[in-house]
Amino acid sequence: MSKEKLSIIKIGGNIIEDDTSLNAFLKLFSTVEGKKILVHGGGKSATAMASKLGIESKMVNGRRITDKETLEVITMVYGGLVNKNMVAKLQALQIDAIGLTGADINSIKSNKRQVTNIDYGFVGDVKEVASNSIDRLIKANFTPVFCAITHDGNGQLLNTNADTIASKVAIGMSKKYETTIYYCFELNGVLRNINDQNSVVKYLNINTYNKLLKDGNIADGMLPKLENCFDALKNGVSKVNMGNTNMFTKENDNFTSITI
Amino acid sequence: MSKEKLSIIKIGGNIIEDDTSLNAFLKLFSTVEGKKILVHGGGKSATAMASKLGIESKMVNGRRITDKETLEVITMVYGGLVNKNMVAKLQALQIDAIGLTGADINSIKSNKRQVTNIDYGFVGDVKEVASNSIDRLIKANFTPVFCAITHDGNGQLLNTNADTIASKVAIGMSKKYETTIYYCFELNGVLRNINDQNSVVKYLNINTYNKLLKDGNIADGMLPKLENCFDALKNGVSKVNMGNTNMFTKENDNFTSITI
Repeated sequence: MSKEKLSIIKIGGNIIEDDTSLNAFLKLFSTVEGKKILVHGGGKSATAMASKLGIESKMVNGRRITDKETLEVITMVYGGLVNKNMVAKLQALQIDAIGLTGADINSIKSNKRQVTNIDYGFVGDVKEVASNSIDRLIKANFTPVFCAITHDGNGQLLNTNADTIASKVAIGMSKKYETTIYYCFELNGVLRNINDQNSVVKYLNINTYNKLLKDGNIADGMLPKLENCFDALKNGVSKVNMGNTNMFTKENDNFTSITI
Repeated sequence: MSKEKLSIIKIGGNIIEDDTSLNAFLKLFSTVEGKKILVHGGGKSATAMASKLGIESKMVNGRRITDKETLEVITMVYGGLVNKNMVAKLQALQIDAIGLTGADINSIKSNKRQVTNIDYGFVGDVKEVASNSIDRLIKANFTPVFCAITHDGNGQLLNTNADTIASKVAIGMSKKYETTIYYCFELNGVLRNINDQNSVVKYLNINTYNKLLKDGNIADGMLPKLENCFDALKNGVSKVNMGNTNMFTKENDNFTSITI
């Protein structure tokens, strides 16, 4: 018997920060057929709130350090303001949404990142996804909406990359479902030339990827994202689509579809 | 067949604001047997955050007005910071908690309070509790943790009194369960004399209540709380207990137990 389909859709800060974009996206999301999970970051809204509260953003080698105060802001903004408003908006669109951090139903456990040269602070690397518990929500016809927060199981919340959450949740759910990840971002898809939105690579698999890579035909910024995608595909995810939020509309085929 | 028991436990700001009290309470909560639901306000933490952000608390006739900015702070503090940290701490105590606003799973719908003489702003009066949806979480062995936020079903979150949420959720769940509400507050129970913590009225029903009332033997501040309690009892709730958080320990019988 073939498995039921499950879509895991991740949106980034560029959509969340703008009310018009967010409302348009949520409307599209509400039309996606079948079981689905939404994952969101928080983008610049947390930085803006931190700055209002006089909390300095600490960066080391271009990467943000999540100290205690920053984690509090992230918990307020991602877990509260962004997540709960999104849930209320989805309810108005007849989607029976439920907003979650990784602490809720113990859904995503992480390890606090080890201090090596840099102490990233309260940042978590995903260790375990409670796919049975998440599935109980899905089976009850609820639509999980995850923000970019996990926990260590000992009472500590941890800031966690939203792309990784989408990927790990999708991998975890692949035991039960035929999963597709949709990474919505500001580009039309994987681009050959980062400055040309029309240079979308429409189909990729591990062979065509290696060939394009060898020929230098994939823009540099795409590489870490694609490594993540292939990691998900190697671990049970059926397909990864990357593009702007129009990839959900039937008219648009200008996005990247990746299989193994 | 007798119904299964369900405890609805409400804690106030005095417990939440102090980490030691909160940790002690959560440990007690984790020992409460059977199915349970936690309801919390946010107390002064939202006021403190609003003041940090330079948002003035607007009061009319001693009652707070929830304007747009205040609602945002409440959503951040109650729905994010307080709720999610509580969930993480409960997970560490092996309670499979799930943090909720009334928007999540459409659990509590409210009407925005009508403007009469006063415009209270984004304040909701509970209209409908989705007891079937809440029960799906309970049946899945999750422990709901509600903050004092509901929604109007049209995408708007609303600030809502936590005592009322506890009462309305308990009433809603009474169709399926034998429900007891525990109101934890800073007093030992219903007092004959508000200045004497030893003047606890241990048992109350509608007859003894009316008698004590007639004789002027109940402290004034208790009356609105008791009206709420009897309203819950008249609408299906089996018992309401009022006292400090020690009412969960077997040694303590110094609290008020109210039946109809």
